[in-house]
Amino acid sequence: MRLRNKPWAQEKLESHPEHVIMKPEEMKGKWSQLFGNDQPIHIEIGTGKGQFITGMAELHPDINYLGIEIQKSVMIDVLDKIIDKKLTNIKLLPTDGALVSEFFEKGEIDQVYLNFSDPWPKKRHEKRRLTSAPFLTSYKDVLETGKEIHFKTDNRGLFEYSLISFTNFGLSLEYLSLDLHQSEMEGNVQTEYEQKFSAKGQPIYRCEVQFK
Amino acid sequence: MRLRNKPWAQEKLESHPEHVIMKPEEMKGKWSQLFGNDQPIHIEIGTGKGQFITGMAELHPDINYLGIEIQKSVMIDVLDKIIDKKLTNIKLLPTDGALVSEFFEKGEIDQVYLNFSDPWPKKRHEKRRLTSAPFLTSYKDVLETGKEIHFKTDNRGLFEYSLISFTNFGLSLEYLSLDLHQSEMEGNVQTEYEQKFSAKGQPIYRCEVQFK
Repeated sequence: MRLRNKPWAQEKLESHPEHVIMKPEEMKGKWSQLFGNDQPIHIEIGTGKGQFITGMAELHPDINYLGIEIQKSVMIDVLDKIIDKKLTNIKLLPTDGALVSEFFEKGEIDQVYLNFSDPWPKKRHEKRRLTSAPFLTSYKDVLETGKEIHFKTDNRGLFEYSLISFTNFGLSLEYLSLDLHQSEMEGNVQTEYEQKFSAKGQPIYRCEVQFK
Repeated sequence: MRLRNKPWAQEKLESHPEHVIMKPEEMKGKWSQLFGNDQPIHIEIGTGKGQFITGMAELHPDINYLGIEIQKSVMIDVLDKIIDKKLTNIKLLPTDGALVSEFFEKGEIDQVYLNFSDPWPKKRHEKRRLTSAPFLTSYKDVLETGKEIHFKTDNRGLFEYSLISFTNFGLSLEYLSLDLHQSEMEGNVQTEYEQKFSAKGQPIYRCEVQFK
């Protein structure tokens, strides 16, 4: 998502330290302490405007959420939603998803969500895809055996690639839908993209894969 | 596929021993001898009317094909195609696909094709699906490590189930298309069903999975 640069975004994020963690590397091993409870912590890498993660935080007050988004001008929209909804079980990390192992100790995170990630369709950009082996390695650094990645996208090429990447990496396929909105799934929280693409009649693909 | 019973079907199949092997269990270990050469042998389980397997046999004269179909009244259509096209690299087995390990020694078969198999959507019929674990076990009895199953279907539920079944069984996912006719695949031979469903704009799903 390429958006107008908003120079005041950095300033706005910095002015909300109760919601935005500007230096996540300093919190490694201390996230439960930050939330003030021992609830499981789920992260979304690439929150976009945050409809998914704020919706999930509302729906699941017994889970803590961390949203990672590299584009600060997008993250301010997530921040606005958190403030509007008065959510206390969510924090934002304006940083790079490739760095998760620098922010979290193994076992500190219970689940990773990837939603409508950038497909990077060119073969030479494969390593930038959030479902490529280098990223899976970094997720494995923080997720224990039995923990899962939940992934959805409307991009057929990315989903085909990702299923092969996941299973080749040794993750087990626990759930699969090739047309999410025609499937029996309760509690699906839609992203902004999902609403848009699904309204056009395009199928949404979704899977849950587990570290072994 | 439920069709009118054709009592003369059995008789017609029996009258063509050069194409139809009525007692395949007697050929175990002798299939190459039957073909008179050492070409690899590919089998299709559930040929339907045979457009796929006869098309493949025409396109790949360097491969021998065996078509298994339990419905004799359907198999006579395959037989007619073989006779019309004067194909010598294909034989038919009017029998049950569940019995492959009774017909073939391990290593005698190089590849298994499953096309538009009966979805058996009810959970209690799961074991009848040609991609369920009991069937995968019998394919493994005849296919060596590195050999593949190639599967295509228009049935979303069956494909979702099958990808989970394949990967849980330990097969590796080597190729995946979630919309075959929009993908770059050369040499795709369509089945009768595939033509019909694809013409309606429904996606065709296809994968190749490998025994490890």
